[in-house]
Amino acid sequence: MKDKLIIVSGGMDSITLLHKHAQFIKLAVSFYYGQKHEKEIQCAVENCFMLEIPHITVDISAVGTLLKSDLLKNGGEIPEGHYEDLSMKRTVVPFRNGIMLSIAAGIAESNDCKEILIGNHAGDHAIYPDCRADFIAPMAEAIENGTYGKIQVYAPFLHMTKRQIAITGKSIDVDFSLTWSCYKGGTVHCGKCGTCTERKEALEGFDPTEYEA
Amino acid sequence: MKDKLIIVSGGMDSITLLHKHAQFIKLAVSFYYGQKHEKEIQCAVENCFMLEIPHITVDISAVGTLLKSDLLKNGGEIPEGHYEDLSMKRTVVPFRNGIMLSIAAGIAESNDCKEILIGNHAGDHAIYPDCRADFIAPMAEAIENGTYGKIQVYAPFLHMTKRQIAITGKSIDVDFSLTWSCYKGGTVHCGKCGTCTERKEALEGFDPTEYEA
Repeated sequence: MKDKLIIVSGGMDSITLLHKHAQFIKLAVSFYYGQKHEKEIQCAVENCFMLEIPHITVDISAVGTLLKSDLLKNGGEIPEGHYEDLSMKRTVVPFRNGIMLSIAAGIAESNDCKEILIGNHAGDHAIYPDCRADFIAPMAEAIENGTYGKIQVYAPFLHMTKRQIAITGKSIDVDFSLTWSCYKGGTVHCGKCGTCTERKEALEGFDPTEYEA
Repeated sequence: MKDKLIIVSGGMDSITLLHKHAQFIKLAVSFYYGQKHEKEIQCAVENCFMLEIPHITVDISAVGTLLKSDLLKNGGEIPEGHYEDLSMKRTVVPFRNGIMLSIAAGIAESNDCKEILIGNHAGDHAIYPDCRADFIAPMAEAIENGTYGKIQVYAPFLHMTKRQIAITGKSIDVDFSLTWSCYKGGTVHCGKCGTCTERKEALEGFDPTEYEA
């Protein structure tokens, strides 16, 4: 029974989730919100095409222009270094997961989907408040109560590390070269920003990524 | 201290809320999501202009095209009758308040606002699941936890009836002729749809509205 909607950014976490649950997914949704690394969406499109899963990109760039974050085209430079560095806080997009989950809830209800799959994980770093369990739990309750109990939220990677997600992906033959992480959105992964650093650590030993550095 | 963001549709509830808390409001936000009665937004603009409150309209019509509701331009005819009628359920926009609150949370955090004001009320009818306390409470918690505790949600009309809101508005001289309810979005209020029926009952005795019927 295909009755799940997945939020898929095109990063290694959501692409792993996509492949893991492919047979149950009715609709995949990506968001364009003005991110510098919009090429991640192309990875989502390619993986969905390969898996024959209908995919839509929702353009909420008008919302993005009203948000402050260095991750966005209207923001400052992407900092380099590790996620835990304070400078990485500037790449947080205010309430991004809340915005994506809410819109996904409306789309899910409109398409008779029963569940929203999201690949966020809290284990690795704490700078993103809308990735953590104490956000996901009330958000899931709000979505359930706000849709007559029709829509559930499922975040199976919530308590996993990125390394564990990478190993899960590897075990089901996810092609990580068809995923995108780098916040800078250049031709190849920069290898220096927080998300590249994290990607390298997670994929160590089986990393097909071409890095600039 | 002006540190509140208000979600203002242009209807009588949110306009009453706007006038009641005007001195504390830093930013007013309306959403264009493809509603047939987009002229409600003009009422929001006019009242904000009068009160010298900065106002922005966020265009999420790309999201609206993906939602199923007769309230939307891509939906069917607006039914006539009372809100309690089953046919009115077709005017529910899936998870609308969740979508608006989430985007408002991101905008609030980006503009150093501390609170989101929303004029929803649960008392009058039960067909809108995302108007009720069991939606607002977890949604408020998700927003608080998803913004490092920076943003609170305040829905002071939650347990009031529309009649009580109307009386509150009258007591502070709200000009209800500068508010819009009718879902049909014609030249004047139709007087027959669910929201017109409700408006008439709420404003009885001091209703300045011109009705078609």
